[in-house]
Amino acid sequence: MTISARRDRLRRRLAAAQVDALLVSDLVNVRYLSGFTGSNAALLILAEGETPVLATDGRYRTQAAEQALGAEIVIERACGPHLAGRAAEAGVRKLGFESHVVTVDGFAALSRAAGERCELVPAGGTVESLREVKDAGEIALLRLACEAADAALKDLVEQGGLRTGRTEKEVRRELEALMLDHGADGPSFETIVATGPNSAIPHHRPTDAVLGAGDFVKIDFGALVCGYHSDMTRTFVLAPIAQWQHDIYDLVAAAQRAGTAALAPGVSLSSVDAASRQVISDAGYAENFGHGLGHGVGLQIHEAPGINAAAAGTLLAGSAVTVEPGVYLPDRGGVRIEDTLVVTDDPELLTRFPKELVIL
Amino acid sequence: MTISARRDRLRRRLAAAQVDALLVSDLVNVRYLSGFTGSNAALLILAEGETPVLATDGRYRTQAAEQALGAEIVIERACGPHLAGRAAEAGVRKLGFESHVVTVDGFAALSRAAGERCELVPAGGTVESLREVKDAGEIALLRLACEAADAALKDLVEQGGLRTGRTEKEVRRELEALMLDHGADGPSFETIVATGPNSAIPHHRPTDAVLGAGDFVKIDFGALVCGYHSDMTRTFVLAPIAQWQHDIYDLVAAAQRAGTAALAPGVSLSSVDAASRQVISDAGYAENFGHGLGHGVGLQIHEAPGINAAAAGTLLAGSAVTVEPGVYLPDRGGVRIEDTLVVTDDPELLTRFPKELVIL
Repeated sequence: MTISARRDRLRRRLAAAQVDALLVSDLVNVRYLSGFTGSNAALLILAEGETPVLATDGRYRTQAAEQALGAEIVIERACGPHLAGRAAEAGVRKLGFESHVVTVDGFAALSRAAGERCELVPAGGTVESLREVKDAGEIALLRLACEAADAALKDLVEQGGLRTGRTEKEVRRELEALMLDHGADGPSFETIVATGPNSAIPHHRPTDAVLGAGDFVKIDFGALVCGYHSDMTRTFVLAPIAQWQHDIYDLVAAAQRAGTAALAPGVSLSSVDAASRQVISDAGYAENFGHGLGHGVGLQIHEAPGINAAAAGTLLAGSAVTVEPGVYLPDRGGVRIEDTLVVTDDPELLTRFPKELVIL
Repeated sequence: MTISARRDRLRRRLAAAQVDALLVSDLVNVRYLSGFTGSNAALLILAEGETPVLATDGRYRTQAAEQALGAEIVIERACGPHLAGRAAEAGVRKLGFESHVVTVDGFAALSRAAGERCELVPAGGTVESLREVKDAGEIALLRLACEAADAALKDLVEQGGLRTGRTEKEVRRELEALMLDHGADGPSFETIVATGPNSAIPHHRPTDAVLGAGDFVKIDFGALVCGYHSDMTRTFVLAPIAQWQHDIYDLVAAAQRAGTAALAPGVSLSSVDAASRQVISDAGYAENFGHGLGHGVGLQIHEAPGINAAAAGTLLAGSAVTVEPGVYLPDRGGVRIEDTLVVTDDPELLTRFPKELVIL
């Protein structure tokens, strides 16, 4: 699907909501709908047949012309207000704006620019809901991103990169370098390497802590390829392994299988979370799994849908999501196992590194 | 200055604005005022003598207890609304909120939580204006970040890392690895390496383009140390050099000296921009310098103050800013030279890599 096809899908949504045009302020949404990747921009999507207008500042004059094919480009630092004024001039009466992104101060500036005849209508999340279902090009890029991560972790393990005496930071660095070797543009987020008691911190940042005998080593990482993010967690053990480590590893692995098995188009998001969480609750560890089961992944590392107990809505065919239960025992250690999958009647596993317990 | 001293400075500002408490939503501001670095949090700063309240979600239970010393910690996914409710319960009548960060949808949720007796008062930018003046601990970290970047670029050049036949991506990767060698936690933003015609794109992202004879190679990069960002640009030439390259290099260097010489506490921000820009305009290249002269740097790579033609206000003693004029000739090449300095009566240069033209 081309970018112009995405804009056509959006226009149908706008028409259904009786909105004449949409002012896109979120930079990821601007990228999705125009191809432009600069750090200051807004995009005005007008009715079918009218050219979209991309506003950015002078730093991006050349880049915008190269990337935002099919759009008129305007150089203007105050991107949003300028486009709100353009919309009003073009006779737009109801201008959708991204109420989940535009700040209270930003809204005041848009209102001044739009004037009295052009009504600003909250349209927060409209583009994100389009993005939830990936097109074929997006899935291809997610596959590449997941493959780069898989290959890097395989190299890391085979080269003996996980061994006692190394620091979390050293492991992070080697893994991130290996992802670049395998075609990544960079890590998709700050790699988590957490050893021993640190593995009980769900989102630990790598330190100079040294990998020691008997440690869990939890690695949560991903590769970025052409703007698309992969996301995977694997937890290893440095010998000797204790019984409690066997127990919680097997438990999390079972919960991960249960969550994955529950993925299907049309099922409720909360039921997927429940399917996995129940396994952990039944074993008496409900208190040790304090985060949601998963999230969508694509142009952002966290995007719609959220898969957690409080989530409303259902899983859509073509969405890409993570399934990542964990059990964390404070001051002892924790296990998380996470995959990224594409939801279909037979979900496609994108992160293929094995999940059997590896004792190093 | 300790973190509690920062909170005391903030409370004096709030009192002056007749606001009883501040709900801090911006994550960088939360870090500045609490030490907590997680990705979902809000902080409620109450009157003197009352314990601040940090809200975050279950992923960060352990980390919050370790980092946010002196704060009460509440585990609650909807951090902002929860704290707005807490403020209302505590009898706060005027609750400042970060109107430059809180979205239109977020404001609606805060309003519901605060109820009718607690008025939400826009206080956007209050913490950022405190952050503009760095305390001694912050300047020490900025020095470390700039030193790591200096040392990495020195190594890169001395090891022959800039030579024909290498790609922009390879240079980026080596430079980023060298920063880690010199103590950086990571790059402070995505390193720009732009060769030949790409150097005319102010914010080019590294590609597989190959460094060739006669190219400008523009490198804009920085190191991140304990949350603090350095920022420096140097432009090299791969022999042979053409006369036009000599000319624009000398011009940008002169403009950079003029901008640096204009830095002083109390001068207007726009006059600093003008001092540098005038040099470029006088040479007939006004159209080829399409961005502002500089920006503050600290916990964010871009923060207050902005130094550009439209900036209101004056430079404050103790602020840390960049001075980075450039001249970009589309399809030919461009030069930018950038330093980070601390503004005092005798400004301190933090990025010390030489600025004389280097022909490799």
